[in-house]
Amino acid sequence: MILDIISKKANNYELTKEELETIFMGYLNDEVKDYQMSAFLMAICINDMSDSEVFALTDIFIKSGDVLDLSFIDKIKVDKHSTGGVGDKTTLIVAPLVASLSVPVIKMSGRGLGYTGGTIDKLESIPGFVVNLSEDEIRKQALDIGIVITSQTKNLTPLDKKVYALRDVTATTNSIPLIASSIMSKKIAGNADKIVIDIKVGRGALIKTKEDAIRLSNLLIKIGTYYQKEVRTVISNMDVPLGHNIGNKLEVLEALDVLKGKEKGALYDLVVELASEMVSLGKNIDIETAKGEVIDNLSNGKALDKFLELVKYQHGNVDNLSIEAKVYNIKANKNGILNNIDALSIAKLCENLGAGRKDLNDKIDYNAGVVLRKNIGDEIKEGDILASLYTNVLDPVFNIDKTFEIS
Amino acid sequence: MILDIISKKANNYELTKEELETIFMGYLNDEVKDYQMSAFLMAICINDMSDSEVFALTDIFIKSGDVLDLSFIDKIKVDKHSTGGVGDKTTLIVAPLVASLSVPVIKMSGRGLGYTGGTIDKLESIPGFVVNLSEDEIRKQALDIGIVITSQTKNLTPLDKKVYALRDVTATTNSIPLIASSIMSKKIAGNADKIVIDIKVGRGALIKTKEDAIRLSNLLIKIGTYYQKEVRTVISNMDVPLGHNIGNKLEVLEALDVLKGKEKGALYDLVVELASEMVSLGKNIDIETAKGEVIDNLSNGKALDKFLELVKYQHGNVDNLSIEAKVYNIKANKNGILNNIDALSIAKLCENLGAGRKDLNDKIDYNAGVVLRKNIGDEIKEGDILASLYTNVLDPVFNIDKTFEIS
Repeated sequence: MILDIISKKANNYELTKEELETIFMGYLNDEVKDYQMSAFLMAICINDMSDSEVFALTDIFIKSGDVLDLSFIDKIKVDKHSTGGVGDKTTLIVAPLVASLSVPVIKMSGRGLGYTGGTIDKLESIPGFVVNLSEDEIRKQALDIGIVITSQTKNLTPLDKKVYALRDVTATTNSIPLIASSIMSKKIAGNADKIVIDIKVGRGALIKTKEDAIRLSNLLIKIGTYYQKEVRTVISNMDVPLGHNIGNKLEVLEALDVLKGKEKGALYDLVVELASEMVSLGKNIDIETAKGEVIDNLSNGKALDKFLELVKYQHGNVDNLSIEAKVYNIKANKNGILNNIDALSIAKLCENLGAGRKDLNDKIDYNAGVVLRKNIGDEIKEGDILASLYTNVLDPVFNIDKTFEIS
Repeated sequence: MILDIISKKANNYELTKEELETIFMGYLNDEVKDYQMSAFLMAICINDMSDSEVFALTDIFIKSGDVLDLSFIDKIKVDKHSTGGVGDKTTLIVAPLVASLSVPVIKMSGRGLGYTGGTIDKLESIPGFVVNLSEDEIRKQALDIGIVITSQTKNLTPLDKKVYALRDVTATTNSIPLIASSIMSKKIAGNADKIVIDIKVGRGALIKTKEDAIRLSNLLIKIGTYYQKEVRTVISNMDVPLGHNIGNKLEVLEALDVLKGKEKGALYDLVVELASEMVSLGKNIDIETAKGEVIDNLSNGKALDKFLELVKYQHGNVDNLSIEAKVYNIKANKNGILNNIDALSIAKLCENLGAGRKDLNDKIDYNAGVVLRKNIGDEIKEGDILASLYTNVLDPVFNIDKTFEIS
C-alpha cells in the first residue's frame, strides 16, 4: 500500500488526500520508515504537487498536533514568517515595532538548527531573558503589553517537524509545495488571522531564483485563501547578509541600533516594509498610512520602548550586552571595489566561530559572530578591515577570497 | 558533499564516476544512510541515468566484492539470467540441457525473497540436495560432470545486494538503468564469457511494457560490449504464469516432465529458445544448428540424464518427490472461455500458501504451491477444476474472480 502510493507519485500521478494521509500519518506513527518517506519526498521534489495535494498536506500537518487558542485576544492577530536568511534579525525589530502600534504580536519561535541561531537563540543571548513561558504567562503578558515572543509550548505540527528534519539530511528541502505547506501549517496552527511572509531569494537562501520566489508567493497566498487567512508576501534579496552583524548577541545589538534610529540601509528598509504590511493588515488601513506610522514609531523611540518593555517583562537585561570574545580583523589583500559578500560563506563561518548548532544538543556561543565593516560598492584599499570575527574558538579558518569579491 | 550529489541527480545533471563512487561506496560503508540512498535512488528512477553513469555504476558494484575465478575451465562459459517471473523453473531444465551438449554451466544462484522461492530453494526441495559447495567442490564437480548449481560461496557484488534490498522496500525497483547494472554486475563478477538474459515482460513481471523490455535489452547488450562480453536477450511474456506448476517442489516435478518430453507449450518453447542461444554462444555455432541439438537432447533423454547426474552428484534424490500437503480444488463459478490467469495473483497466493518468504529468515514450505488445471483459451464449465492449491496452511484465502478471468 505504502509502496503503491510512493510509486504513484514517482509516476507523476496526483494523490488523493486519503493517500497522503496514509503515508504521512504512517510516518508520524513510525509505520512508514525514514527511507520510504525520503524516497517519497524526492518524488515530490522532482514531480511537484498539485494545489489540492498542497492543501491536503497542509491540513494533515495542522491536524497532526495542537492548534493554539488565541481567542482571548479580540483584535486581529498578524503573524510574520521569514524563509530564512543570513543576518536576519528582522523579527527582533518588527515585532515590537508593530506591537507599539497596538497590533498584538504573540510569536512562537523555534531555535535555529543551522549556521546561526533562530529568534529564540538571539533573545536568549540577552542575560536573564526567559523564553519558556507557560500558557497562563503568555495570556497575561499578551493582555498586559501586547507582545510575547516565546518558544513553543504546545505540540504544534509535530509531523512537519519530523518531515522537515528528514528533508534537511536528504537533499529534499528544495520543493516549493513542501516549503509552502510547512510554513502555512505552522502559521495556521499558530492561529494568526493574517500572515506576512518574507521570502528570501538569492545565493544565501533556500530559494535561488525570482521565478521560484514568485511561485512560492502565489502558493502561500492560495493556501491562505483556502483557510480564509489573508496572506501578504515580501520578496527580499539574500545574495548578501542582511545588515552588518551576524551572530546571536551581535544581531541583538544591531536590532537595538535600528530601533534607536542609528542604522538605515537594507535592514531598515526591509523592517519598514514588513512592519507596514503587518500594520496595514492588523489595523485594516492602507499601506501608505501604515508606513507613515511605522516610520514614526522607529524615529520617536516608541518601537524601542516596546522592545525594552518586552525584554523587561521576560526578565532580560540589555544594559550590558558587551561581546566577550577574541576579535580577529580580516583585512583586504588587494585594492578595488567590494562587489560581493557571499552570504552562505559568512553563515558557514559563523557556525565555525561557534554561533550555530549542527545538532539540537549543541551549545551556542552567543558572543560569536561576524561584523561586516564594508558595504557592497565601497572602494577598498589593501589593508582595510573588511570584517571582524568574534569567537572563542582558537585560530578560526577563513577563506577571504571565497567570501569577499574585490575587483 | 553527499547532499550535493543527491541534489545534482535530483536536478537531472549527469554524475561523474567519482561522485557515484562517493555515494555508493559510502552507502556500503554505512557513511551514507538508508534514507539518503533511497532519496537518491528515487531521483535516478525519475531522472534516469546516462550510459556512462550505468557503466560506472556497474563497475562500482563489481568492485565492491570478489570476482569469481573460473580460469580452470578452458571452454567458453555461458551464463543465463532471468528478470524473474511466476512459475519460472527454466534454469532447472536449461542448465542440464546445455551441459548435456558439452557447454559447461557453473551457476551461482540466490534464494528467493518474494512470492515464491529462487532456483536454490527449488533444488533444496529435492531431499538430500546440497547447495552449499566449497570452491574445491565446485571445481571438482565442474571438471567431472560440467554442471554445478550452488549458492554463492564468495562475496559477489555485496553493494548490489544492499542496494537491491533497499530498492525493494522503497518503490525504486522500477528503473531500467538500476535493473541493468544490477544484473550485469552479478554476471560479470560471476565471470561468464557470454550471457543470455531472459527479460520477462507483462502484468506479472517487473517490466510491464514491451518498450521498457527493449530499452533494457539494448542497455544490457551495451554494458556487455563495454566489458567485451557477448550478451543476447530473449523477451518473454509474463502476463500468465510460466507452465502449470508454481511452488518449489511442484516446479521441480514440472521441470522433470519437460525433461522427460511429457510437456510442451510455452515453458517448453522458452526452454528451447534460451538453451539454443546458450549453445549457439558456447559452441560458436549458428542458432538453427544449436536449436536442432537442443531439441534432440530434450527428446533423447540426454538432458534428463544430465539433470539426474547433477542431482546425484549434489547428493539429492528424486525417487520420491511426492507432495505432502492438503489439496484444495478451485472450481469455476460460471461457464465461458478462460481469458486470463493473473500471474501476480497466483504469486501472492503461493506466498500465502507457504511457498515464499517475506524475510530471509522465513522458512519455506517446499510442498506448498499451485497447479493450474486449465489453459488460456480453454472452454470452461461451471464446476470445472481450474487449479489445485497445495498447502499446510489452514483454510487459505483465495479470490477466484481476481485470478481467473472467464467470459
